[in-house]
Amino acid sequence: MSRSEPVSLHDIYLARARIAGQAARTPLIRSQSLSARFEAEVYLKLETLQPTGAFKLRGALNCIASLDQAQLGRGVTTASTGNHGRAVAWAAARLGARAIICVSELVPPNKVAAIEALGAEARVIGRSQDDAFVEARRLVDEEGMALIEPFDDPLITAGQGTIGLELMEDLPELDQVLIGLSGGGLLGGIGRAVRGINPGVQVNGISMMAGAAMIESLAVGHPVAVEEQESLADSLGGGIGLDNRVTFALVREVMDRHFQVSESAIARAMVHFFEQEKMLVEGAAAVGVAALDEHQLDIRGQRVALIVSGNGIDAETFMRARAMVAG
Amino acid sequence: MSRSEPVSLHDIYLARARIAGQAARTPLIRSQSLSARFEAEVYLKLETLQPTGAFKLRGALNCIASLDQAQLGRGVTTASTGNHGRAVAWAAARLGARAIICVSELVPPNKVAAIEALGAEARVIGRSQDDAFVEARRLVDEEGMALIEPFDDPLITAGQGTIGLELMEDLPELDQVLIGLSGGGLLGGIGRAVRGINPGVQVNGISMMAGAAMIESLAVGHPVAVEEQESLADSLGGGIGLDNRVTFALVREVMDRHFQVSESAIARAMVHFFEQEKMLVEGAAAVGVAALDEHQLDIRGQRVALIVSGNGIDAETFMRARAMVAG
Repeated sequence: MSRSEPVSLHDIYLARARIAGQAARTPLIRSQSLSARFEAEVYLKLETLQPTGAFKLRGALNCIASLDQAQLGRGVTTASTGNHGRAVAWAAARLGARAIICVSELVPPNKVAAIEALGAEARVIGRSQDDAFVEARRLVDEEGMALIEPFDDPLITAGQGTIGLELMEDLPELDQVLIGLSGGGLLGGIGRAVRGINPGVQVNGISMMAGAAMIESLAVGHPVAVEEQESLADSLGGGIGLDNRVTFALVREVMDRHFQVSESAIARAMVHFFEQEKMLVEGAAAVGVAALDEHQLDIRGQRVALIVSGNGIDAETFMRARAMVAG
Repeated sequence: MSRSEPVSLHDIYLARARIAGQAARTPLIRSQSLSARFEAEVYLKLETLQPTGAFKLRGALNCIASLDQAQLGRGVTTASTGNHGRAVAWAAARLGARAIICVSELVPPNKVAAIEALGAEARVIGRSQDDAFVEARRLVDEEGMALIEPFDDPLITAGQGTIGLELMEDLPELDQVLIGLSGGGLLGGIGRAVRGINPGVQVNGISMMAGAAMIESLAVGHPVAVEEQESLADSLGGGIGLDNRVTFALVREVMDRHFQVSESAIARAMVHFFEQEKMLVEGAAAVGVAALDEHQLDIRGQRVALIVSGNGIDAETFMRARAMVAG
């Protein structure tokens, strides 16, 4: 597969074979409380049960497993402190490749330790994420390492798309899916998979209010930069790349509707997961519930899947969100 | 199968076929933090992902699915406000049988509503759990309903044992399993399954300090009554029945060791699940972690499974446990 081609349903099947036995085939469970409240059949796809606690593992595994032996020997790198960094560290260790995860000096020590616990080298360098990216690029140019992109790559997107295949196997009558929208790898991959199998499935993207780069880019018809802002859904932050190759066009093609949700709705949704689903999830994983709640979506009688994308959150952050709801 | 015979490995295979497609085949996930801390491979069996949030569904389904059509027509009953009551309500609704769950007037309205939301009738009667049991017995004697026992029944025990089959399929190299010990249906069933397949697997039972009826009964060689006491692991409370038919002998046969854990260890274990595994679990589901912690069990290099038995806990109870640890 050339890296400039769009992601096909076939690519997603190839990804599934590549990552089988490495990434978890996650459960799809029915939410009793959401089903009752919205008079629908509401299901949760628990990517929180991936070994690193987030869906990112699928794409990273698909990408690294596609490298040849010589490249595996030279290793892989990326610049990320979050779910993507942990996914690359875990996938590289699993596949026997050296990994260097570049992070800035501002990254807290516990995040650095988490990356090292997964068997990767955390390279602490510079005062910003941009500095960390410069080092990752240098490792590619000078030491021949492979750069594992966070989203804008056909193999990454195809890997995330394997979630869509599992959805259609477990719930072939699926009517709608609600997916957190950031760089578009998750939404693009799942959207391609479910609509490739049933074009009638409605694909909904959900972002926070401020700094939703993909939504602002779609509005003007080309990738634009946005100012990053604090959000409980911090995993949805960041740009889509002004030279976006894959996900901008893919999301434009496969997404039917998008919604933006307020910080208070995200906080309420996180509390819902805690109190009703008995799960601690990050804000980005709760935006589907936030959209159902805040936009009063009419899903009566429908079968709806929400992608619970990750649990990269600490107890203190959750407690602050809970206090927002109570206060 | 006669109801006075012990539970065999074959009975557990029969149970699995009976409940397949109704109970969830739950995931077994590796705990990164427990594995690192105990220098072992520690896995969590997530019975919290059953539709009613606890393992009890397996036994209830196996029992009700074994009834003939005439009995299904007359319906089923039990007296329970907790995981067992919800399991019987859910299983009966799923299998098309009427269910009456008897509870006392002391049971809080939200627990009554939870039973009714699952499609059963909640019959509120008398001032104690004993009064509720009298009504359940009356429904059996006068209205021909079938009594679904909470644990001391071969079909219930065989149903819980299906967890053991899944453990051995997913982790055939299993060295030890840690199981909450109460009436013995869960431990007896799992113990029979894993040791029926590999007699070398070590089966550990865990109870709270006070009111551990099975442990006190084993100590004197016959079932004895104990005084119930408050515990964070309230699902492990209650007697084993002075006329115990199945589980006392079975637990004596299949359990290698048992441990008792303090309330503070249970609270710490619940906080572990929240902070590290990102799950809200009831005290009874956390006792395996409490035992590893409080008894400093040496499991280095071993493959160990903990049964995360249920999430029947509300947010306030968890917050009180968390405050115990912090304070």
